[in-house]
Amino acid sequence: MLGTGEEFGGLFRLLAAANGHRAIGRIAPSILTAMDASRSNESAWRDPVLVSSIDGVGTKTRIAALCGRLRVAGADIVSHGANDVLCHGAVPLFMLDYIAASSLDRSAVREVIRGIAEACRRQRISLVGGETAEMPGVYAPGEIDVVGCTVGVVDRARMITGEAVQPGDAIVGVASDGLHTNGYMLARAALFPSGGSAAIRRALARRPAGLAESLEEALLRPHRPYAYAVLSMREHVEIHGIAHVTGGGVPGNLVRILPDGRHACLDRRRWPVPPVYALIQKKGRIADGEMFRTFNMGLGLLLVVPASRAGAAVAHLARVGERAWVVGDIREGARAVEIS
Amino acid sequence: MLGTGEEFGGLFRLLAAANGHRAIGRIAPSILTAMDASRSNESAWRDPVLVSSIDGVGTKTRIAALCGRLRVAGADIVSHGANDVLCHGAVPLFMLDYIAASSLDRSAVREVIRGIAEACRRQRISLVGGETAEMPGVYAPGEIDVVGCTVGVVDRARMITGEAVQPGDAIVGVASDGLHTNGYMLARAALFPSGGSAAIRRALARRPAGLAESLEEALLRPHRPYAYAVLSMREHVEIHGIAHVTGGGVPGNLVRILPDGRHACLDRRRWPVPPVYALIQKKGRIADGEMFRTFNMGLGLLLVVPASRAGAAVAHLARVGERAWVVGDIREGARAVEIS
Repeated sequence: MLGTGEEFGGLFRLLAAANGHRAIGRIAPSILTAMDASRSNESAWRDPVLVSSIDGVGTKTRIAALCGRLRVAGADIVSHGANDVLCHGAVPLFMLDYIAASSLDRSAVREVIRGIAEACRRQRISLVGGETAEMPGVYAPGEIDVVGCTVGVVDRARMITGEAVQPGDAIVGVASDGLHTNGYMLARAALFPSGGSAAIRRALARRPAGLAESLEEALLRPHRPYAYAVLSMREHVEIHGIAHVTGGGVPGNLVRILPDGRHACLDRRRWPVPPVYALIQKKGRIADGEMFRTFNMGLGLLLVVPASRAGAAVAHLARVGERAWVVGDIREGARAVEIS
Repeated sequence: MLGTGEEFGGLFRLLAAANGHRAIGRIAPSILTAMDASRSNESAWRDPVLVSSIDGVGTKTRIAALCGRLRVAGADIVSHGANDVLCHGAVPLFMLDYIAASSLDRSAVREVIRGIAEACRRQRISLVGGETAEMPGVYAPGEIDVVGCTVGVVDRARMITGEAVQPGDAIVGVASDGLHTNGYMLARAALFPSGGSAAIRRALARRPAGLAESLEEALLRPHRPYAYAVLSMREHVEIHGIAHVTGGGVPGNLVRILPDGRHACLDRRRWPVPPVYALIQKKGRIADGEMFRTFNMGLGLLLVVPASRAGAAVAHLARVGERAWVVGDIREGARAVEIS
């Protein structure tokens, strides 16, 4: 239904058999190699590995719906899935969405799908299908769940697994843009401890002290997509590991890519934690540890690279529009993440 | 996490980047060709087309949860997705699940995932990942949503699209096993018009007049998987079109595969409509048309084949354990489905 298909030609032909909307998309080598300059003369994958991810936007939808901005939730699920498959070095190829509610408000669904379609087009991902489901009694009235399944591809020889992470490596943190899609339960509990919808709407419209924007703007910033920035970096900088900072926060996601005997040390003075987190932490009286285990704290993606290439990584990321900092390093030690 | 991976070797390597459980699976040519005898000497796909589907079990979960049998819902979503990709002639390769609730009851989630894992193993589908989400306020307390995304593969030259459907073709209906995963909202409204959970549980335990089993047994029969039966048939019988009878019922799904100028006529005396439908129809005072637009009415899958091969199709299906009947034919005329 979304016609991303027609722009593409070649390699894979993707086809949705979903019961809902149905579309055909093709992914061209040209698109893939646009993201990976040195491979532009190759027309096929040598030994393709499919990488896939499924996840939902979570309760960010509740704030998006209150503000009439569900388009953000649609875009978020695209970036979330693309960043997930990126963690293995994969180029996101195609995705399917699932949108469910007690009863589907047509304009709400349209907004979500518009957000998905726009983000897919921008990120050159083929939206091949999806499903909408009405389940009264299962969903609370007025609530909506937005889920996406994303499939990407990477040549086996170029897969990133974290196995190469070694002592001395640098950890480069790439700036997030707000909470992305995680921690909204805790953020809502902290910011709106007892408010009904009307009270929450009023609070969202205000600009709290310390913030340069309204709470609505701060909480509804879209999930930042990193695939282009990172894949285009691979020719200049060898990447040993990538962690997408989602549920579980900074330590929960970084620890996953550490081999045994590798310890990650982050220095929190090395990057600016956005002011929205100070607000949430203060209002909710939340301990530091819980903040880091719940939110991205300003780092949407963590890259582990050889120390000698850390400067080049930061410079490349700056060139393609991403703010990044060397935020820590890898040492020998227990497989764990330490933030000091 | 579910380790279907180790049984496999070759062709694709599948890898989940999902935030939740994570597993690696491989799909072997041997598995694929086991389903397609004549191709057993080929070690790779010539021109692979990926076919994908996303869908949820729907409100069947409500009855499954009441009966403490959520394992059925897990198995259902596997068969549902596999049958969906089968409609284009694709072999199901891998799937990811998404399980969400207000707060996740560990034993409920375990039951669902056990059902998914067992069905994946039985159907030789690699369960490469999944996600569980807790969203209080979005889901009603005690309710659960079970979603699956399935990806299959077919050689382009062997894709089934419905384009070949032509006047004179026979329509072969393959027996369903109960409601599969569709029509539960209407079924519940008809069978339990005003009951609370306790009353529904009592009604489910009873055997209504006309049924050979309890209502629970009738309503919780698993969604039947057809991939093996149909893919193993392709060497004997050319297939012009396949419709998986899900939401939209018999006409809603069959019409999708009809080319312009092709009319499908079904004769409802040609197959036995299971007695559970008479019960639902009577209790809910539901018109015939609504029954056919909502339920599979005893036909889980519809195959369009050359008339001369209809007998061979039915015979092959019987050999592999499926009941099937020639239920209608294709004629020239308006693109529509007629049931008389």
